[in-house]
Amino acid sequence: MSSGFRVDALQYCDWSRGIFEDWRAGGLDAVHVTIAYHESFLEMVTRIEDWLVRFRDHSDLIFQGLSGSDIRKARATGRTAVFFGTQNPAPLESDLGRVEICHRLGVRVMQLTYNLQSLCGAGWQETEDSGLTRFGREVVAEMNRLGMVVDLSHAGARTAMDAIETSARPVAVTHANPRSWRETGRNVPDDVIRALGETGGMLGLSLYPHHLAEGSDCTLQAFCDMAARVADLIGAHNLGIGSDLCQGQPDSVVQWMRDGRWTHQRSDAVFPDQPSWFRTNRDWDGIEAGLRAAGFSAPEATGIMGENWLRFLETSLQPS
Amino acid sequence: MSSGFRVDALQYCDWSRGIFEDWRAGGLDAVHVTIAYHESFLEMVTRIEDWLVRFRDHSDLIFQGLSGSDIRKARATGRTAVFFGTQNPAPLESDLGRVEICHRLGVRVMQLTYNLQSLCGAGWQETEDSGLTRFGREVVAEMNRLGMVVDLSHAGARTAMDAIETSARPVAVTHANPRSWRETGRNVPDDVIRALGETGGMLGLSLYPHHLAEGSDCTLQAFCDMAARVADLIGAHNLGIGSDLCQGQPDSVVQWMRDGRWTHQRSDAVFPDQPSWFRTNRDWDGIEAGLRAAGFSAPEATGIMGENWLRFLETSLQPS
Repeated sequence: MSSGFRVDALQYCDWSRGIFEDWRAGGLDAVHVTIAYHESFLEMVTRIEDWLVRFRDHSDLIFQGLSGSDIRKARATGRTAVFFGTQNPAPLESDLGRVEICHRLGVRVMQLTYNLQSLCGAGWQETEDSGLTRFGREVVAEMNRLGMVVDLSHAGARTAMDAIETSARPVAVTHANPRSWRETGRNVPDDVIRALGETGGMLGLSLYPHHLAEGSDCTLQAFCDMAARVADLIGAHNLGIGSDLCQGQPDSVVQWMRDGRWTHQRSDAVFPDQPSWFRTNRDWDGIEAGLRAAGFSAPEATGIMGENWLRFLETSLQPS
Repeated sequence: MSSGFRVDALQYCDWSRGIFEDWRAGGLDAVHVTIAYHESFLEMVTRIEDWLVRFRDHSDLIFQGLSGSDIRKARATGRTAVFFGTQNPAPLESDLGRVEICHRLGVRVMQLTYNLQSLCGAGWQETEDSGLTRFGREVVAEMNRLGMVVDLSHAGARTAMDAIETSARPVAVTHANPRSWRETGRNVPDDVIRALGETGGMLGLSLYPHHLAEGSDCTLQAFCDMAARVADLIGAHNLGIGSDLCQGQPDSVVQWMRDGRWTHQRSDAVFPDQPSWFRTNRDWDGIEAGLRAAGFSAPEATGIMGENWLRFLETSLQPS
């Protein structure tokens, strides 16, 4: 197993001791976990309560990550640091003061938009993207002050560019791939990737089949060759992984992600099969080997596997 | 001004920069402020947001106290540490996990009951006091674990005795006087005071007229003589002040305290006049002088003025 730090910048698994054991087997020092999609503030609080119980019940495997240095603490104590994030500003409920409340409760990453229009900006599924809203600008400033990562993974392109420009601190796309590799609005156009890199931001490459060329049939080599091309665009030091892994989740979860409570229509979405080389959290070694085979140097590969996120989080989670 | 630490274990003033300036003029290193009476969890969160704004706007005068050592930090930086407390477990809303959520948000003191029956026990105004409830026992254990002060100021006598016996850590009556001095159910019977002292708990003497013999006409000497008699019962080192000062509040606030939303009846309660010797937060020096005149030694008087609360909080706010 690698001696470099390993960080996954997004998962939403069916949390259990088995998943946490897989994290340890896969050598993960830190995982950014989603605690809310369409949830209200109170619902998010309940999800946090669930995690506080897990931290007590599985303190030999996991603990709550609050600062970048907690990733080093995780390595030193043989555990995985769990960082909370929301994929949507829904829990803020139009109240700017909630940003600091969320921060107090340990939320360290927040997407300004999920798929649709939020109070902060437009998601990638809206046909019109009017950019970062007035409230969105306030939220970005507050996140900058507190040391929370602005996440643009599901943002529309204009909203993403506005946020990169508006944020006083580098931002992240925690889980997406280049649109030029797999054409879907959910992946990121090259100009956003370039702007991310120019501002010291991070792109976490996704292992979710709908974001991969050839989907579930994508090969490890194709994924790593894509990583090499993105590195030419953004710099290998601004690249990481955000697997978007939903290990063990039933299909009702992907339906919740899509439909929330914003529509009476119900999609019949199902989780696609993971590619054969990344089925669970025990499969991380293969990806590091694949990056090396694609031409990345050992330091570049360990950077992408987690050291770049470590460096980014050590700075980004400090209050300004 | 005294060189001892000064701590007031309960206030609910009409918070403003003027009040914080009065705290500094009165030499207060720490104040326990009420952030909720009958408020729901969400309403309490909003009250906390209000305080977070105050901490930013008046950072030269105040900051949030989270641990006992913050009282020393307050003294070292010439400011007042503000500790959050609720006078009622209403914000828990029957959810045990909320205790830790409240703790994360900085709540450090919680009354198990206000005037009425709560989910944890009975308040002093109930005619039947069935003692600490099953949920109440869980809440006490959780507060013990996290390091939150169990406050019994408004509890019925049986609930108070149950809580003193059940709690693995010393508890407090932050703001009340002996019932033997001023007969009102809101003051504390001698057996509760004795049990508090025997378990290392604290009694904060109240300066609210309805808790004083002769009410608003109570003299400083009568108050300090009472303190001397209570010291015989509980030990001077287990005594402090919890003024219950509501400086600047309109009468609508005392009506909210009494009626909340639990009755359609509306009391015509008004705030009584403070005694002439303790009208505002600028009047603390006189009380220390009064305690000396009543026969307390200098160390005993500084203990009652705040050093006893400091010692108690330095221990009690640590997680177990």
